[in-house]
Amino acid sequence: MAKSIAGPEIERLIQLLAKLPGLGPRSARRATLQLVKRREQLLAPLAAAMATAVETVKVCSTCGNIDTRDPCTICADASRDHSVVIVVEDVADLWALERAKALNAAYHVLGGVLSPLEGIGPDELTIRQLVERIAGGGVKELILAVNATVEGQTTAHYIMDQLAGMDVRITRLAHGVPVGGELDYLDEGTLAAAMRSRTAM
Amino acid sequence: MAKSIAGPEIERLIQLLAKLPGLGPRSARRATLQLVKRREQLLAPLAAAMATAVETVKVCSTCGNIDTRDPCTICADASRDHSVVIVVEDVADLWALERAKALNAAYHVLGGVLSPLEGIGPDELTIRQLVERIAGGGVKELILAVNATVEGQTTAHYIMDQLAGMDVRITRLAHGVPVGGELDYLDEGTLAAAMRSRTAM
Repeated sequence: MAKSIAGPEIERLIQLLAKLPGLGPRSARRATLQLVKRREQLLAPLAAAMATAVETVKVCSTCGNIDTRDPCTICADASRDHSVVIVVEDVADLWALERAKALNAAYHVLGGVLSPLEGIGPDELTIRQLVERIAGGGVKELILAVNATVEGQTTAHYIMDQLAGMDVRITRLAHGVPVGGELDYLDEGTLAAAMRSRTAM
Repeated sequence: MAKSIAGPEIERLIQLLAKLPGLGPRSARRATLQLVKRREQLLAPLAAAMATAVETVKVCSTCGNIDTRDPCTICADASRDHSVVIVVEDVADLWALERAKALNAAYHVLGGVLSPLEGIGPDELTIRQLVERIAGGGVKELILAVNATVEGQTTAHYIMDQLAGMDVRITRLAHGVPVGGELDYLDEGTLAAAMRSRTAM
C-alpha cells in the first residue's frame, strides 16, 4: 500500500500485524481493515488485552512455561503428578500436549534444540536448570518429548548424558502410525518403528 | 486449549486474535505465543499501535474512507483529480485500486452492496450521500468499480437510476482477461466479454 492512502497510524498497524506468524502483508491489511471497522467490538478490546498481557506475562522460573504467574498455572497445580516431568522444545509443544490431554504431569521447556549451525549450544537452552531440577530430587520420570528431528534427538541424547547416574527414569514418546493415518502415505522409518513397537490387541 | 494451561489474560488474547480474518483458533494460538515471547519487540508496540488507532481512526465524512483524519488523505490530496469519483463497495477495494495505482482520482465507499436477502437496502449504504455529492456539482465522471457479482451489478444499476438526468458521465471497469491469466482457465462470460471489447494492437 502506498504511504498516501491511509494515515501513518494505520500503516504502522499493518506493518506490525504482518510480523505475526500466519499473516502476510496482504492478510495483515485485511485484518487491519477489519480492526479499524470494528473499532469498539474488536480493536479496543484487543488493544486492552495486549496492554494487559505486556504487563502480566512472565516466564515460569521452574519450568520455562509462559504464563501470567510464576510459578505457572501448571507448576502450581497440586492435582498434577510433579514426579513426572515432560521435556519439550517450546511452549507451543507444551500447549499441544495439554490440548491432547496427554498426561497430567509437569513440564520443562528447553527453549529450543541444540543446533551448532545456528550457534545454539547447551547454554542457550534451559538444560542446566533441568539438571539442577532433577538433582534437587522428587522427579521419578523424565519424558523427552522433543521433536523427532535430528536436532531433537541430538538434544535428547545430550540431556541423557548430562543426567547419567542420576536416579531418574528417562523415556521418550512412542513412534508409530498417527491416529487416522494411512499406511500408504507414511515414510518407511515410521512404518518400521510402528512394526517394531507393535502391541497386542 | 484448556482453561488451565495459561492465565486468563493469555486466553483472552487468543480468543480476540481468532476473530481476525485469516486467523483461526490454531493460528491465533501461534500468533499469541509469538507475541508473548517477543513482548518488547512485538507485543508492546502492537498494543500501543492499536491504542493509537482506537483514538485516531475516523470515517471520512466526504467519501466514507477509513483514515486517521477527516477529510481523509485522499479527499485532502490536491494533486488528485476530484472531478472523477470511483465508487467502490468497501475500503478494501479502495486500497486494492490504490495499490494498483489505477487512477489518481477521488473515491466514494458504499459500505456494501444492495442485498434484499440480507436486509441491505439503499439506506444501509451511502447512496444518498453519493447522490448529494454529485448534485453538489464538480464531478464529471463517476466510475462504478463495484464487484462483477449480481449484487454489485444490481447496486450499479440502482445508482445509475438515482443519478438519471444529472450531468455526470457514468462508466464501469472493463471486463476482460486478467493480466497473466490463461484463457484455458477463464470462464465463458469473461472470455466473451474480452472478445467483445477487443482492442487494436
